[in-house]
Formats: sequence, structure tokens, C-alpha cells
Amino acid sequence: MNITPGQQGEIEDARSSVSETRRPTVKAMEDILFHIHPVLDHGFVRVIDYMGDDAAVIQAARVSYGRGTKKISEDRGLIRYLMRHSHSTPFEMAEIKLHVKLPIFVARQWVRHRTASLNEYSARYSILDREFYIPETTQIAEQSKSNRQGRGSTVDEGQAARVMALLKDDAERNYNNYAWMINEDERGETVDQNRSSLARELARINLTLNTYTQWYWKINLHNLLHFLRLRADPHAQYEIRVYADEILKIVASWVPLTHEAFLDFRLNSVILSAQAVNVIKAYMAGNAVSREASGLSIREWDELVSRFPALNSLPKS
Amino acid sequence: MNITPGQQGEIEDARSSVSETRRPTVKAMEDILFHIHPVLDHGFVRVIDYMGDDAAVIQAARVSYGRGTKKISEDRGLIRYLMRHSHSTPFEMAEIKLHVKLPIFVARQWVRHRTASLNEYSARYSILDREFYIPETTQIAEQSKSNRQGRGSTVDEGQAARVMALLKDDAERNYNNYAWMINEDERGETVDQNRSSLARELARINLTLNTYTQWYWKINLHNLLHFLRLRADPHAQYEIRVYADEILKIVASWVPLTHEAFLDFRLNSVILSAQAVNVIKAYMAGNAVSREASGLSIREWDELVSRFPALNSLPKS
Amino acid sequence: MNITPGQQGEIEDARSSVSETRRPTVKAMEDILFHIHPVLDHGFVRVIDYMGDDAAVIQAARVSYGRGTKKISEDRGLIRYLMRHSHSTPFEMAEIKLHVKLPIFVARQWVRHRTASLNEYSARYSILDREFYIPETTQIAEQSKSNRQGRGSTVDEGQAARVMALLKDDAERNYNNYAWMINEDERGETVDQNRSSLARELARINLTLNTYTQWYWKINLHNLLHFLRLRADPHAQYEIRVYADEILKIVASWVPLTHEAFLDFRLNSVILSAQAVNVIKAYMAGNAVSREASGLSIREWDELVSRFPALNSLPKS
Amino acid sequence: MNITPGQQGEIEDARSSVSETRRPTVKAMEDILFHIHPVLDHGFVRVIDYMGDDAAVIQAARVSYGRGTKKISEDRGLIRYLMRHSHSTPFEMAEIKLHVKLPIFVARQWVRHRTASLNEYSARYSILDREFYIPETTQIAEQSKSNRQGRGSTVDEGQAARVMALLKDDAERNYNNYAWMINEDERGETVDQNRSSLARELARINLTLNTYTQWYWKINLHNLLHFLRLRADPHAQYEIRVYADEILKIVASWVPLTHEAFLDFRLNSVILSAQAVNVIKAYMAGNAVSREASGLSIREWDELVSRFPALNSLPKS
Repeated sequence: MNITPGQQGEIEDARSSVSETRRPTVKAMEDILFHIHPVLDHGFVRVIDYMGDDAAVIQAARVSYGRGTKKISEDRGLIRYLMRHSHSTPFEMAEIKLHVKLPIFVARQWVRHRTASLNEYSARYSILDREFYIPETTQIAEQSKSNRQGRGSTVDEGQAARVMALLKDDAERNYNNYAWMINEDERGETVDQNRSSLARELARINLTLNTYTQWYWKINLHNLLHFLRLRADPHAQYEIRVYADEILKIVASWVPLTHEAFLDFRLNSVILSAQAVNVIKAYMAGNAVSREASGLSIREWDELVSRFPALNSLPKS
Repeated sequence: MNITPGQQGEIEDARSSVSETRRPTVKAMEDILFHIHPVLDHGFVRVIDYMGDDAAVIQAARVSYGRGTKKISEDRGLIRYLMRHSHSTPFEMAEIKLHVKLPIFVARQWVRHRTASLNEYSARYSILDREFYIPETTQIAEQSKSNRQGRGSTVDEGQAARVMALLKDDAERNYNNYAWMINEDERGETVDQNRSSLARELARINLTLNTYTQWYWKINLHNLLHFLRLRADPHAQYEIRVYADEILKIVASWVPLTHEAFLDFRLNSVILSAQAVNVIKAYMAGNAVSREASGLSIREWDELVSRFPALNSLPKS
Repeated sequence: MNITPGQQGEIEDARSSVSETRRPTVKAMEDILFHIHPVLDHGFVRVIDYMGDDAAVIQAARVSYGRGTKKISEDRGLIRYLMRHSHSTPFEMAEIKLHVKLPIFVARQWVRHRTASLNEYSARYSILDREFYIPETTQIAEQSKSNRQGRGSTVDEGQAARVMALLKDDAERNYNNYAWMINEDERGETVDQNRSSLARELARINLTLNTYTQWYWKINLHNLLHFLRLRADPHAQYEIRVYADEILKIVASWVPLTHEAFLDFRLNSVILSAQAVNVIKAYMAGNAVSREASGLSIREWDELVSRFPALNSLPKS
Repeated sequence: MNITPGQQGEIEDARSSVSETRRPTVKAMEDILFHIHPVLDHGFVRVIDYMGDDAAVIQAARVSYGRGTKKISEDRGLIRYLMRHSHSTPFEMAEIKLHVKLPIFVARQWVRHRTASLNEYSARYSILDREFYIPETTQIAEQSKSNRQGRGSTVDEGQAARVMALLKDDAERNYNNYAWMINEDERGETVDQNRSSLARELARINLTLNTYTQWYWKINLHNLLHFLRLRADPHAQYEIRVYADEILKIVASWVPLTHEAFLDFRLNSVILSAQAVNVIKAYMAGNAVSREASGLSIREWDELVSRFPALNSLPKS
């Protein structure tokens, strides 16, 4: 990750400015504000601003005149109740703003979450940095046989090295040609006076999908948790999951009670279909169960057994 | 429900007009198009238009050049897969438009679902009908002791009669005064030339919350299912639940495969929290379980036991 | 407006708690935080929280590592540029949270703005206050002849007094009957042990539309400005316009540069249709213009002339 | 554009299936349904489905029991009224579904319009076509001097040819390497058994931003018009504008009254800022005007004069 001294200075300036406020403040968030949390080879997540805390969720749920909180145990109970019963609006009352640097192919998945505000660095207006995502050897895997949109086992070292070299060469050559078309150096001066400087909006189309972009992203806590439920999931592509994992850590600092309830009722919960409920009930009643009788598909059955391995053996009655 | 002969004629005219189309068409929906499905004492739901069918969900999931469907068994499998894995966007590809007549207090709950398009009959512009929701005796119940936002058992007949009379009297008196303020008869002529006709936007503020309003409501299938999951639920207020139940029947006619998957994976599914999963696993392994050891709240435990009554007895090992 | 001593104490407690923060802070907003801004006879607006300032708009537009601001004149120019060219996303980067008390009929208009987060005081769960909106004499007006959804001139004093008395009587009687059905006093104790306490979700349906409700409302600056453009407009109903006017003053304190640009390019701007442009151009070229030749409807022509009264006289050529 | 015989057959099959419906039907839309409208070198737009017509807008605005339409002149007047006064919800009552093939860099701009439903061809799951956008000579232009995010004049032929060759070479080389990594031919069979087939989600990151993707896109008429206002605008990048232009033609076929009102009140309208209004009024009153006195920036002034060239000469008084 290449942070220039100028950028580093801007971050430190921003951190050094402290004011008094009557708004709810979270110490753990103040500590990390503006800091760079590295992700992948050149990416990062930075917290730029936040609104509210666990108490703000409660305050809104109670439509309170004051802070809204009572005892911590009551607050925890209310937050768990809200999460469990899908009372989502109080969680919309907290908000976070992040600065994210990420490869374009990750950005393309990310924007599928439409309920957020977004300002992306404009490649029509500005020149993109010479930074590309090159996966590490441990991430270079073959197409999964069982999951048509996922990865299987890693490829052998020789092939991995060849893939890495190829990705690097193509990204760099394409960037060099992009730079040639733009015909402008880092200080904004024309390199070759004898030819035109191509419009940036055109030159950029030569870049590869692993080129890094960056944006400001602002989202409320409810929608953020929905994003995390889908993107911190093992089915998500590794390269977006590492961003979700990093953000999930920030959520734990910011709203610890909500984070705990989210883990219990969303991320680590299990949804049983009507058919799966019947399987579990039958087993608990001491009856033999089988996929054939269950109405479950092979994949559903396998997922259920992986969650409840006892189903592989007969009930103990 | 008072449908005027003029309105009935409009409905029949609309039904009698038939055209040819290349768009996907659902016979069961054509049969009910524009018809009135009564709900409560004066309310209704009418299907005004629809876009797509089960095959349209598949077509979009496959980004197909043609219809997208293959064998019915494959289609069913794909729809269940999409529903199970929260792949919601293909379900956004079907759309329905309803005309609904409903009490204002129900309308106030309904609009909390923001991801829909809505045109409500304007009481700034037009005069509302003299129609109020008066609950039937079987619906007049006391405040629940266990659930602070629900109903308990019904009250005795005498009190029920008194409540009904009171609701009726207050609604009618307030409507009479509304009509007096507006000072205009049904043909739009001034009743009393010796006083002003009050602005409708002002006069309406005297009406009660059980007065009926009506609107056009258009929503995609994904968001409709979310609405139904929350509003066809026993925790929803009875007076909105009956609308959800009626709409759910329409969904069954319109997109039978999606409807079946929705019942199995949403409406009749069970979400187990991380703690509840551990309880079930322990029980299946032949271990004794208890609320105290489970980490569940009393209400959570009771809900879990109501789903899996075997938990009340010891495992059979 | 009836703020109880308990509520007043909660507000003062909240105001007295001050922390240090690295986040952008607006002195003028800190000064008013949690305070009550009265609106109508019993309503209010209170600022509960805010995120960002004018500089946050710029910071996001620049996808900056630091504060993003340069000279105040450059910042002003950029904000005006963004507003003028409908670059709306940077304005989504500031957020405000309000606590609002408002009559239910105003609340029903308000929620038509769907791009906000909302937690309303629940009348299924809690008992509503005995507070109703009764318009002042100066607001009791007849139905407009020219605008089918607006008010014309005020009615005579005698009729106004009668309207006020009627609204007051009906609201109070209905509230009394609501209280009788609920059968519970302010400390939550049953009033009459010999009858049931009706479910709150049912009893409330007897209330009138001018009863006050309250909610927490959180919205980003872009969507707030859209709300204000429609609701601070003369075509909006008076009773919602006064809320918009009060919020507009808060916006002026919060983001003065954005507020100025909003007035110039939205609230006080004029949209000329293609036909109106031709009228203006013809007039400026010294040619006679007329409604008949313009293609404008009577109402469009009148609106254009009210904006550009010179059109009533011949060009001076 | 390479439509395979199989795809062509699917389109023809879909077109040949005709049903009877009671829903509103637009002859001009039935004629083009499923057809390919080519855009750029390999892209297209296809209408897959539509809901409603001009009359559906009116029907919703009137919350009608029947078709809602009266005389064509009244319908036109109402639609113009709704458009002029930003009554947007009736326009949400019509919906369209398109199948679009477009370069990825265009797709990235397109998704910034969040109020639509989208299913994109998945490059995690499937293999992308070997198709890249290469601009025509007339589109290869230099960076604009006056507009930092636009194009200026075209570059000379020699440089244009070099740019085209470079874009073509880089895209093809990167695609070849993508294909090599995937190691699978068009029938889904492994090419080289001696090495692994890389996960598709990884291999795709080597592709260039001018590679074509495709999606199903469904949006209501109101949001579509907002998209068109921004993307059929001269400030929009050429490569997305040509899509907007093509869709605008479809809108003209589908909802001719709405299309006409959209041109008059949106696309060809002029928004005058508060300051610009004063300039026009002063000029019409026969007074001299100047940028210095106007409060307008240089760019604003230039835009105003380009709209009203008379401002360049003195008023004729």
C-alpha cells in the first residue's frame, strides 16, 4: 500500500483536531478514527465518521427525550429482542462512513448493496494510481467442482507463480498504455507535446479489473449488518470477505451489544426450512430419519447434517 | 363494502377488454384481474396488473435470451436454491400492482414498507367515503399480558357491544361534522350557501383512524414476500394480517413455485440462534438441556420449546 | 406543548454531557442540540444528532484522505457546482437525526418521503398523549377555487370559532372514549377492575387524525433538501410547511454553504419548460408574445407571467 | 455483435408465443418485444417486458376503479400537470424490463442509479464472451480543456489508429490469458488436462474494463426518466449516452404522452438560478446586465448566455 507523505500528513492533521461535542461518542471509535486498516495487498478501510452507538439504537426504539438507556442488562435485552424479531428500524439510527480502497472487481460486487451512499474517485476526472491486486499463492485456487461459483483447492506452485506473473504483466502493460494515452505526468504536465492527451474517460477502459479504486461509503447500521451477513459469509468471494471481516471488527468496537446480537441471531444462526424442522423433530422424538423421506435436496441434506452431525447416526432411543 | 354501480361498471369494462400480448401471462391471474377480494367490513384487494411469473425469475437468474425455463423440476430446484441462499434479485424481476381499500390505521402500518410505489386517494383533493372499520365481536380483545404490543382474550359480550357502539358513534359523528365543514354534497354542489366550504385538507383532520382510505400499491415480488413474512405473521396486528393473508393467496396463484419456496424457507422456517443450535445439538446427543444453561432468555426458551416440544422431556438415551 | 418535568430533566441531562471527539463538529448545532423548537400548538422539532458539515460534502466529493477543504471561496464554488449539476451523492454524506412531534395527518404526508429512517412512538405498545392540533383562526380557510388541493381565503370569525369548537369537542370526546377503553391511568394501573382493558392497538382506532404522534427521523442531507424543496413550497399544506420552515433554519446553521446553494439553485430557482424558454427568448428579441402562440396552458402561462411580469407589457423595441 | 444461432432461436421462440391478456397492452411495444436494438460495436438493448402505459399513470393518479382515462386531451393535460409539479408517484406505476449488453466501464456508471432491479451475468459462475468495446475513430478525443471530466476535439488519424490498435491488442491478450487460466473450451471441457482450471472468479480479474457484460434491468418509469435526464445529457460520457438515447426512443413508443411531457419539462427545460432570474428580469425591463453585477460565476454566465444569446447585446429599449 502506497500512502504518500502528503496523504499521511492529511490523516495526521485530521486526527490531531479535537472538539467538544454533546453527541454520543464512542471512545474505541475515536481511537481508530482516520487510521488505515490494511486489506489485501494495496487496499484499506478507514473510519471517517460515525453517528450513534448502542444507546442510540435504544433511544430511537423508545422514542426517548433523553439518552434512552437504562441498565446495561436491560439495554442488552432490548437490543437482542429487536434483532431477534427483525425490528430493523432502530438499527437504522446509527450510521458509519468509511473510506475504502479496493480492486474494481470487488467494487463491482460491493455496489450491489444499493442502500448506501457512495462517492467514488472519478477516473473521468482524475488519474488512477498504479496499483493492482495480485492474489497471494495461497489464494490461487481452481474452480470448485461442488460449488459452481466458488474456489476449490489451490493449484500447484508452478502454476500459481505463472498466474501471478501473468496477472502482474498484463496489469502493468495495460497501465503503461493507459499512462501513455493520458500523456501526463504526476504533476499534471504533458509528457509528449507532439501528440494529444487522450480523454481520461476513454484511456481508463484499457485498465484491468484488478486495478484499485477508492470511495467514500456511508451506510446505516442495519444495512451494514445485512452487507456483513452476506459478505462475511463463506460463500462470498475471498477478496470481498476480507473487507467484511475487517469492518466486522470495527462494528465490534463501535456497537458491542449490537455486534453480539448480530453474531447470535444472524451470522451464527441456522435457518431451518419447514422440512428440516420436521427432520429435527422426528430425530428428537427418537425416529429414524433419511434424506429420501425428508423432502430435502441432496445439498440441503448435506448442509443440515454438517450443522447437526448427530443425524448421521441413529437416534439413541 | 359499498361499490357503486358506476364503479362496478368500470370494473366490468376493464375486464371485458382483452388484447394479445407476447409477454408472459398467467391464466390464474387473468381470471381474477380487477375483481374485488373483500377484506374486513369495507376493505378489499384488487389485482390491477402484474409483470412476470415463476419463469421470469428464472429467466433473470440465467440472464437468458429466451424464456429461461427448462424442465419444471429444474425450475423448481433453481427457485428453491435462490430462496434458500437469499439470492433476492431474481425475485425483484416480477412485479404486481394492487388497488387496496383499508382503514387509515392499517395504512399507517403498511407504509412502513418503503420499497413500494404508492398512490393514495387524496383527502386534500377529494372527499372520503363514509366508511369505517368496526371490529367484529370476535376481534374485540383485551391488552395482552404477555405481549406488550398484542391482544389477549376477547372481552365479554356486553363490553364488546359497548365498544362497538362507541366506535360507531364516534366515527359517524366525526364524519358528519367533516361533511358539515366541507359543505358539499355528492354531486359537488354547495349545501348551505350562507357559509363557507372549509378546505378539505383541514376538514379531514376531524376523521377517526378507522376511516377507510384507498390506494394503488405496486411492489416487486421480493419486497412483497418480505412484507408478507412480517405481516402474515401471528405477531402482526389482525387487521393488517387479513390483508396479508389475502395477498398470499394471490401470490399462490401467480407464482406457485416461488410461493411454495417462500412457505418452506421463510414463512414456515425456524431461525435458531447460536445458543438454540447448541441446545438442539446437545439434546440430539442425548444430553440434558435447561434454560439456565442455555443462555436463552425466558421468552426465547419458551419459543424454542413451543417449536420443539420434545425439549420438555429428557432425551431418550 | 406539554413537556413534563421528567422529560425536561432528560433533555437537560443529555445536554450536560460533553465529550471530546475527532469528528467534524458544528458549533451552531452543538448550541441547539436536544433543544425543543416549537411548531404548531403542541408539536416540536429537536436535533438529536448530526454527521458531517459543509466540509464533509467536499471531502467526499474529493475522496480525500484529510478534511478535503481548501479556501472557503473554493469550497463555496465547489458546493455550488455540485448543486447546480445535480451531483447529489456528496450531499448524501451528511446526515441528521431529528425528534419530531406532529399531528397524525401531517405524519401521513411526511412518510411519503421514503428515503429516511423512522422510529415512531407505538400506539400498539404505549398510550398516546392527550394532545390535538386545533388550527388558529388565521388558518381556518375555505377550499380554494383555483387550486383543487389547497386553501383559499379564511372564513368569517363566527364560522372559524364554530370549526375550532367542533374540532376540539370531537377530538376530546374521542380521546376520552379511547382512555375509557384502555382503562388504565398514567401510572399504568387499571382504573376499573370490573371490566377488561382493551388492547391498545384497537382502542387507538377511535382517535382523530389531528392527534399528535412523535418519531425519530434520520435522513441524509440530499434527501432532506428534496423533502424541504417539496414541503417548504407554497403548494404544501400549511401544517407540514411550518415544520419544513423550522428545519430549513436548522439547515442554515448546520451547513451554511449548502443552504445558500440550495436557496439559489432549488428553492428560489425557476424551471422554464421548452415552451417557456421560447417565450422568453422571443420577448428578449423584441417580439410580441401571447399565450395562444406559446403552447402553454392557462395555468402555466399565469405562473410564467407571475415570475416575469414584464411579459404583460410589450417588449420595448 | 455476435448473436449465436441458438440465442437467435430463443428470441424467435419467445416472440412467437402470443397469449390473451386483460392487462393494458401497447401495440408498439409488442412489435419490438425481445428484438435486439444494437448499441456501440457489440452492445444492445432488448425490451423483455413492460407494465402499464400512459393510461396506467392516469389510473393511479386518480386511484380509479377502471381504466382511469378520459379524453386524450384531458389525459395529456393531467400528465403534463403531474410532470410539471414533480408529482412523481404516478410515473412509478409503469415499469419496464430490459436486457442490456454493455462494456463494464459503462456498467459501472449505470449502477450508480440504485433504484432499479438488476441481475448481471455472473463471471464467478460463467465465462464471459470474447467481446470488447473499441471506440470508432470519431470518438477518440483528447481530454477537454474546459470540462475536466469530458472530451475535447478528436485526435489526429494516426494517433487514433494507434489508440485503437493498442486497446484491441491489450483486450485480446488479456482475454487470451483469461481463457488460458480458465482452461475450458466453449463446450465446458478441459483444454489441458495437465494443469488446473483456475477459479473463474479469479481469472476474470485479468479482463479489461472494455469487456462486455450483460444484465437484466428493471426500473419504473419515474426512475427511468431520472436516469435518462442524467444520461441522455451532453455531460454524460458518450458510451452511456448512446444507451440512453436508444432507451429514450423506446420510451417514446411506450408512453408517448409521458415522453412528450418529459422532453418539455425535463430534458429541454432550463433551470434558472435565483441570480439568473434576476438577470433575465432586468434584461426584459430594458436594463443593461453584466456578469460582474449578476453574481454568476463565469461558467454559469456562459451557460446562461448560450441559452439566451440576446444577453450578448444590449436590450432594445
